[in-house]
Amino acid sequence: MQKMDIGIIGGGQLGKMLIEEGLRYNITFATLDSDANSPASAISSEHVTGSLQDAMALKILAEKSAVSTYEIEEINVTALLDLQKQGHAFVPAPESLQLIKNKGLQKQFYGDNHLPTSAFVVVKNVHEWKSAIIEKLPQCIGGKIVAKLCEGGYDGKGVSILKTDEILSGAAEIPFEGPCVLEEFIPCEQEISIIVARGLDGEVKCFPPVEMDMDPVKNLITYQICPAQISDDVLNKANTIAVDVVNKLNGYGLFAIEMFITHDNKILINEMAPRPHNSGHHTIEANYTSQYEQLIRILLKKPLGDTDIIQPSAMVNIIGANNFSGAYVLQYEKELLQMQGVYIHMYGKKESRPARKLGHITIMASDMEALRVKADKVLTMCEVVAL
Amino acid sequence: MQKMDIGIIGGGQLGKMLIEEGLRYNITFATLDSDANSPASAISSEHVTGSLQDAMALKILAEKSAVSTYEIEEINVTALLDLQKQGHAFVPAPESLQLIKNKGLQKQFYGDNHLPTSAFVVVKNVHEWKSAIIEKLPQCIGGKIVAKLCEGGYDGKGVSILKTDEILSGAAEIPFEGPCVLEEFIPCEQEISIIVARGLDGEVKCFPPVEMDMDPVKNLITYQICPAQISDDVLNKANTIAVDVVNKLNGYGLFAIEMFITHDNKILINEMAPRPHNSGHHTIEANYTSQYEQLIRILLKKPLGDTDIIQPSAMVNIIGANNFSGAYVLQYEKELLQMQGVYIHMYGKKESRPARKLGHITIMASDMEALRVKADKVLTMCEVVAL
Repeated sequence: MQKMDIGIIGGGQLGKMLIEEGLRYNITFATLDSDANSPASAISSEHVTGSLQDAMALKILAEKSAVSTYEIEEINVTALLDLQKQGHAFVPAPESLQLIKNKGLQKQFYGDNHLPTSAFVVVKNVHEWKSAIIEKLPQCIGGKIVAKLCEGGYDGKGVSILKTDEILSGAAEIPFEGPCVLEEFIPCEQEISIIVARGLDGEVKCFPPVEMDMDPVKNLITYQICPAQISDDVLNKANTIAVDVVNKLNGYGLFAIEMFITHDNKILINEMAPRPHNSGHHTIEANYTSQYEQLIRILLKKPLGDTDIIQPSAMVNIIGANNFSGAYVLQYEKELLQMQGVYIHMYGKKESRPARKLGHITIMASDMEALRVKADKVLTMCEVVAL
Repeated sequence: MQKMDIGIIGGGQLGKMLIEEGLRYNITFATLDSDANSPASAISSEHVTGSLQDAMALKILAEKSAVSTYEIEEINVTALLDLQKQGHAFVPAPESLQLIKNKGLQKQFYGDNHLPTSAFVVVKNVHEWKSAIIEKLPQCIGGKIVAKLCEGGYDGKGVSILKTDEILSGAAEIPFEGPCVLEEFIPCEQEISIIVARGLDGEVKCFPPVEMDMDPVKNLITYQICPAQISDDVLNKANTIAVDVVNKLNGYGLFAIEMFITHDNKILINEMAPRPHNSGHHTIEANYTSQYEQLIRILLKKPLGDTDIIQPSAMVNIIGANNFSGAYVLQYEKELLQMQGVYIHMYGKKESRPARKLGHITIMASDMEALRVKADKVLTMCEVVAL
């Protein structure tokens, strides 16, 4: 049996864009997802229908594929480690995924390696919260903490910003049952993301940082701009930290490193992802090499591509409206299609649901000023409405 | 049965790139080609194996597809006209294809509509050549003519530049048996191509002209640069002519209009193609909307996209070497992958053959000077060698 060149665990939009960008390399893809109509499986050469928790389904995908990667963290890592022992190749390595997918282990890794990050404590259950805050995060008393479920959070779910006084007094309910990381809340000036590619031969390239605006309610990026408006000094420090993270992880593949820049220009690592990332969508049009092509190159053992920007860009997510679920249309598609340097990416999801990521729009312009004008306009035009 | 959104008659590289650029629209493609492993059929959702001359195969594709287009002229047009009468949609219309695919009818169309083109005469067979030259092209006696087979020429095959004295004296053999167009040879300053998109609602947009260097032996474009280095006056005239051609044809779809610019700045139409064209490959990376996406938009009845360039670009074909046939590799792939703004498109053809188009490379740079330096370097690096 001819193996597929690349297996993708997960069939979401990140897998879809990976395939779209990979076709130019004349390669074949297999996908694994519980939904045979997922965005990526609709265009893969072969699809395995199964849960990402199912060791047998993972084995079938791995056997079909010369090398496998993933586009989501929620995977049965134990099964991947077993399959790796049996000779199946995964990039990034399952060990990297195992560490990153647990926010407690991830945070501990930053601490152990003296990588800058906010103060934190890991709690196993609700009974440990109060004493953990009092003992490990006393500087947060009277202020706020960020609580994150160690496993299973996604797209802002499993993350909560809380007032410590309300937790300690019992006025606020503890939102998560299971193991959590409690972190000092960092009032930050800017939030940036740097995507680092590291080849199997150790070659490293960073994409230029992007700067994010977050929706405080949905806790999703609603607007992103590249290049980030930061000083050369901060840029250099941020690049050094991002590369340091991946080197210390001994990571191979593509890693997105999200960082806070504080009001006094300190850089703190927020979290990382071992896969193509929402903060790299714009690279499809706006950079010489996209994050997706970069991962393809790593998987195929080819040299990394140049990551410079061609033009400044912005990226806006298209998110399901709160007031309905079901079939939908992009309300201003016609007008958007007529704008120069505006690229609509709908992910082909059949139904809208509140806060569901349905697509994104990349906006390019020749300078930052023109870009902001255009992006502000697009931001008002990316609503979906019931069909 | 759920129909495919778009059927493509022909499975070559133009169809492959049409699919690659169309995936972002979440649409499905069916292809028709005699080779089930053709570049486009490898990535289409459904493939029909059959000859483009076979009325039944064309019917099967048309029945599978909401609308069909084509990526090559050598198709049974009579069958398409019949299928259109039965209610199947083709864009461009079979009538446009019928006129364009016969170089005699095409040339006659320019003449009938007072569109500028070189002097010509159509001959039915070899016996008509001498009298046709003497009667219709007396200004060419002592000079040269271009002879083109009316049907079946492709990629420089079926075209020949001849000295009239040698034809008239019988010193040179007449190269083609069948019906031909004999044209006055135009010593030209520049050869340009303009791709015109015309939507089903009559909306028209031109891509910026590209300028071509031709290999005189293979009669293939070896180097192409965009934007063409022409004056605003010539640009305006050329755009007017290109739009005029498509309007007078009442054409819907994508049309490439190749033109000569003479030493005294006269513009003459050379020929046209009713499909994505080699002279538009660069638009994938270097223009806000590619020629392929533009055709997708027309087929889906969406507004046309902006055609401006993002950066100047050059395009080099990767052509099978004369000294071997068989499996091959791109010799300097590794070095090319490391250059900024250099995009390799291999078409996935299994075997190289002399003069076969195996791929192309697009080169982008921020200004024309940097572009020429980079393109000259790439031109020396796009050789394929036996595997």
